[in-house]
Amino acid sequence: MSSTNALEVLIQALRRLPGVGVKSAQRMAFHLMQHDRAGAEALSAALHDAAQNVHHCARCHTFTEDDICSTCLDPERDASRLCVVETPADQSALERTGAFKGLYFVLMGRLSPLDGIGPKEIGLHKLMERASDGVVQEVILATNFNAEGEATAHVLSEALKSRGLHVTRLARGVPVGSELEYVDLSTIAHALVDRR
Amino acid sequence: MSSTNALEVLIQALRRLPGVGVKSAQRMAFHLMQHDRAGAEALSAALHDAAQNVHHCARCHTFTEDDICSTCLDPERDASRLCVVETPADQSALERTGAFKGLYFVLMGRLSPLDGIGPKEIGLHKLMERASDGVVQEVILATNFNAEGEATAHVLSEALKSRGLHVTRLARGVPVGSELEYVDLSTIAHALVDRR
Ligand SMILES: [Zn+2]
Ligand SMILES: [Zn+2]
Repeated sequence: MSSTNALEVLIQALRRLPGVGVKSAQRMAFHLMQHDRAGAEALSAALHDAAQNVHHCARCHTFTEDDICSTCLDPERDASRLCVVETPADQSALERTGAFKGLYFVLMGRLSPLDGIGPKEIGLHKLMERASDGVVQEVILATNFNAEGEATAHVLSEALKSRGLHVTRLARGVPVGSELEYVDLSTIAHALVDRR
Repeated sequence: MSSTNALEVLIQALRRLPGVGVKSAQRMAFHLMQHDRAGAEALSAALHDAAQNVHHCARCHTFTEDDICSTCLDPERDASRLCVVETPADQSALERTGAFKGLYFVLMGRLSPLDGIGPKEIGLHKLMERASDGVVQEVILATNFNAEGEATAHVLSEALKSRGLHVTRLARGVPVGSELEYVDLSTIAHALVDRR
């Protein structure tokens, strides 16, 4: 893009962001240098601050700046129910429903043997320990409903059940507001199987 | 996405990048925190360094860390030809062709009155001064071949010609390797008009 080394370094650094190719990185660098230097400095500071201060909650594994996150410390939550999600974004989606008042365990990923992500990487051992605290009565598996998420739920379910824990899974079914005609067939089939 | 303030600040800062919405920003922040802290620190440093040290070449207006960029200082270049481009990326594309040995003037944008980008913002006055140095014999307009790029070329052409300068435009035509059947009609029409 240019003869300046600082810009070339910036473009290469932007390419480390997921989904950013060389064209996008050039466009981003150009935008920041030409129109938003303050944005560049703000992003620089935010990256450094997060990289230094964000780590994992000792109980649920989500991102936090404290030892234990505010959700885990909240005495109003129902400690007998533990919901297992793949990412903080999934946890956030569940929280926005307002339908769950229990606690969480965040895997920070999903099983993906081809990418080298096994039980250790998603903290299976830690989850077993957490779920066996004597307070948890039910573990709700809320991994995604795609191949890797289902495989992850299956492995977790087997391991948790072997400890005598009660394990449930989010219901599969027809999305609210959908017309059956336009819903894919495997979803309808699952909704039939899981009918109430 | 999470209860941590540092992560929320990071997600908001990432959204200042062009083309990055809230979902992408969450995905980027998650990736950096979970898998690439070194990448976060490298990007932080690169942003700060570029924001502090990159400015505009006093002669051609492109990004540089020096007062005058290496292209403008290169005694091997043909100073009698000045090519006007919209961005450093466009300049880089022309350089990669190896077909141009003259100098450049980088507008750092294009006329776009609705966005408040007028002749001042693209440095028209500076271009006039640069092109009137008594050495430049020909100004080649290489703005993009879309509506705004064409309008920009028109305005620049009128201004430069009024100073008695020789102004040319990149040829419009059929892209190399194309089959006529699949080329859009206005391109074919232009290729006919500009036939050699
Ligand atoms: Zn926690
Ligand atoms: Zn220059």
